[in-house]
Amino acid sequence: MPIVAVTRRAHFNAAHRLHNPRQSDEWNAKTFGPCNNPNWHGHNYELDLTVEGPIAPDTGYVMDVGILKALAEQHVISKLDHKNLNLDVDWFRDLLPSAEHIALVTWRELRPHIPMQLKLRVRLYETPRNWVDYDGR
Amino acid sequence: MPIVAVTRRAHFNAAHRLHNPRQSDEWNAKTFGPCNNPNWHGHNYELDLTVEGPIAPDTGYVMDVGILKALAEQHVISKLDHKNLNLDVDWFRDLLPSAEHIALVTWRELRPHIPMQLKLRVRLYETPRNWVDYDGR
Amino acid sequence: MPIVAVTRRAHFNAAHRLHNPRQSDEWNAKTFGPCNNPNWHGHNYELDLTVEGPIAPDTGYVMDVGILKALAEQHVISKLDHKNLNLDVDWFRDLLPSAEHIALVTWRELRPHIPMQLKLRVRLYETPRNWVDYDGR
Amino acid sequence: MPIVAVTRRAHFNAAHRLHNPRQSDEWNAKTFGPCNNPNWHGHNYELDLTVEGPIAPDTGYVMDVGILKALAEQHVISKLDHKNLNLDVDWFRDLLPSAEHIALVTWRELRPHIPMQLKLRVRLYETPRNWVDYDGR
Amino acid sequence: MPIVAVTRRAHFNAAHRLHNPRQSDEWNAKTFGPCNNPNWHGHNYELDLTVEGPIAPDTGYVMDVGILKALAEQHVISKLDHKNLNLDVDWFRDLLPSAEHIALVTWRELRPHIPMQLKLRVRLYETPRNWVDYDGR
Amino acid sequence: MPIVAVTRRAHFNAAHRLHNPRQSDEWNAKTFGPCNNPNWHGHNYELDLTVEGPIAPDTGYVMDVGILKALAEQHVISKLDHKNLNLDVDWFRDLLPSAEHIALVTWRELRPHIPMQLKLRVRLYETPRNWVDYDGR
Repeated sequence: MPIVAVTRRAHFNAAHRLHNPRQSDEWNAKTFGPCNNPNWHGHNYELDLTVEGPIAPDTGYVMDVGILKALAEQHVISKLDHKNLNLDVDWFRDLLPSAEHIALVTWRELRPHIPMQLKLRVRLYETPRNWVDYDGR
Repeated sequence: MPIVAVTRRAHFNAAHRLHNPRQSDEWNAKTFGPCNNPNWHGHNYELDLTVEGPIAPDTGYVMDVGILKALAEQHVISKLDHKNLNLDVDWFRDLLPSAEHIALVTWRELRPHIPMQLKLRVRLYETPRNWVDYDGR
Repeated sequence: MPIVAVTRRAHFNAAHRLHNPRQSDEWNAKTFGPCNNPNWHGHNYELDLTVEGPIAPDTGYVMDVGILKALAEQHVISKLDHKNLNLDVDWFRDLLPSAEHIALVTWRELRPHIPMQLKLRVRLYETPRNWVDYDGR
Repeated sequence: MPIVAVTRRAHFNAAHRLHNPRQSDEWNAKTFGPCNNPNWHGHNYELDLTVEGPIAPDTGYVMDVGILKALAEQHVISKLDHKNLNLDVDWFRDLLPSAEHIALVTWRELRPHIPMQLKLRVRLYETPRNWVDYDGR
Repeated sequence: MPIVAVTRRAHFNAAHRLHNPRQSDEWNAKTFGPCNNPNWHGHNYELDLTVEGPIAPDTGYVMDVGILKALAEQHVISKLDHKNLNLDVDWFRDLLPSAEHIALVTWRELRPHIPMQLKLRVRLYETPRNWVDYDGR
Repeated sequence: MPIVAVTRRAHFNAAHRLHNPRQSDEWNAKTFGPCNNPNWHGHNYELDLTVEGPIAPDTGYVMDVGILKALAEQHVISKLDHKNLNLDVDWFRDLLPSAEHIALVTWRELRPHIPMQLKLRVRLYETPRNWVDYDGR
């Protein structure tokens, strides 16, 4: 059975700030530069969700991208879009909302809702020139 | 003397919120929806700056795009990048930071620094699917 | 009152064929080449809708892009998306579904639903390298 | 000998319909939604062809991308461009033309024409927000 | 008769250098910076060609974009692609190959080959973030 | 410790020529076609630099992309931007400046400056439709 990877791109807009409360203000300002601005800044995030597995003969699909899109909307996008990641999203109460961590949490939240025989990978664009990839390792 | 328009694309990331303090909270929530989130959200803005005028024979330039880029950095980008438009930027103390108003203010701030014989136009992308144009009218 | 143009990008996928029934098959094959294929071909269309007018002081908006998006969905996208333009869409019963004509019809269908004091312009991408503009002239 | 992957992007426009004749019309309508429209719809497909292998010292090439482009044109693009995938293309007589299957067939058609010591991978964009990857597994 | 603008995007790769032989080396180095490098540098240029006029009822076309593409290939692209603009292209014997001048010359070369009742406009991207527009004024 | 890959996109413009001095002019003209033009041609290159490794708990970063950007600027971009790769860059004295070789050399120059526990991968776009990947193998 041939193995194909299928990707759907979703998106959300959010505000965030990089600040580690266990470190001093000086350390935070030096480490995060303008990303440490106390009044927040924000991004248009693009989120690429990839599922990989065998093609189902009846449909020609690995997974219906409409279903993948709906799962992303329900479990990820609705919780992040037009939000302040630090203040409005429980996942980041004790976790810095860096692009790396957003990708990690997205993967962990979606994984239980994707059929077990399919692999899941996540790519998150913070800007068109900065992005991260996470595949569950 | 031929007339050519030259454009340079700049960019900045910022947080904002749409909220009109002269209206009720209900009106704001209904009018602005998720853009009214009290904890802010944000965007990667792309800013296209266009100057139009005659070509200088010595350089083949309408205006050196390096100079246009430096003027944009000094007068606009350095004041907006990684900022909260409502809290950190004086221009929006009494002005809603909608895409329309950001384009308007950008044009007004840059206009005095562009040679008088050149026209100036501004395009601002709030997302890759939403943008505004302003030309000083 | 400053005048700003606001644009929202919508999209749809459709099949079509260029064939003029008042001309011979030879004329059609020669004129339209592969676009005359009797079994259809198709495109991912991108549709940029621009409204231009004064900024409303209460909202900072020329027009809420959410409303513009909903009008486009109701009056244009829902009638074209995943359709055969020649067979499924009444607008093209007697009109060749060229990019030029799709832009023209889109403008005529949307115009009555846009506030009268705002200008409307339409850009339609048939591919990333071919597009048309129509502004009601 | 260093191993490098080289990619060339090709494109084609086509109409298709997702319909499994071994299932009922109800099943097809429910499973494929608007993609089941009996009168077809279509897409601008982008096809990324990647070959991976050692660099030839005389040319600095893994494979001349001009040759890769010509092979894609001859064996894939000329058979799919401006076609109805279901009606005009033999490969899909008994195979649903889903993005997964188009990638699979593209790989199988091109593989015999690529030098044996090079790996081949295929990415197919059905829209800018939906794509699939196949590498021969 | 409705008036529509139709655009076709073409592309070419070329080397160039900005250097005004009527000025000193110091002036050139200061004015053009790295663009004055005596050993050349280069760009992937994108060239958008727009024709505007009435729709022909028989075809639904303002102008067949296949014809526009062929005219661009014959009169512009074949003379600029994979060339050194300063050394290989007669048009720039006495004219600095700035983006402004390339757009100007492109317009003048194509204008005689476009039907007289159609307007012609040219946009030239030197990079994805720098471009110029010329419409014959 | 979760493993994430982080990418930063850089860019440079350069001229080059593909010519192997150990082969005849005929062989070079036939093998490289217009890329063999003795007067050079050029490209806008995009360079994607990926580092992969564990997330540092204090910062939420695999590596600060600002540092990655600065390293790329210092060790790669400053040596290639607005240059003639064949004449101005020592790395290509005896190495054809094909996309494959530029990616290879970029990797080798950057590798010593990236923390040892992080993997490094390089993608180089010669045009938006041609690119290469190298990961150190």
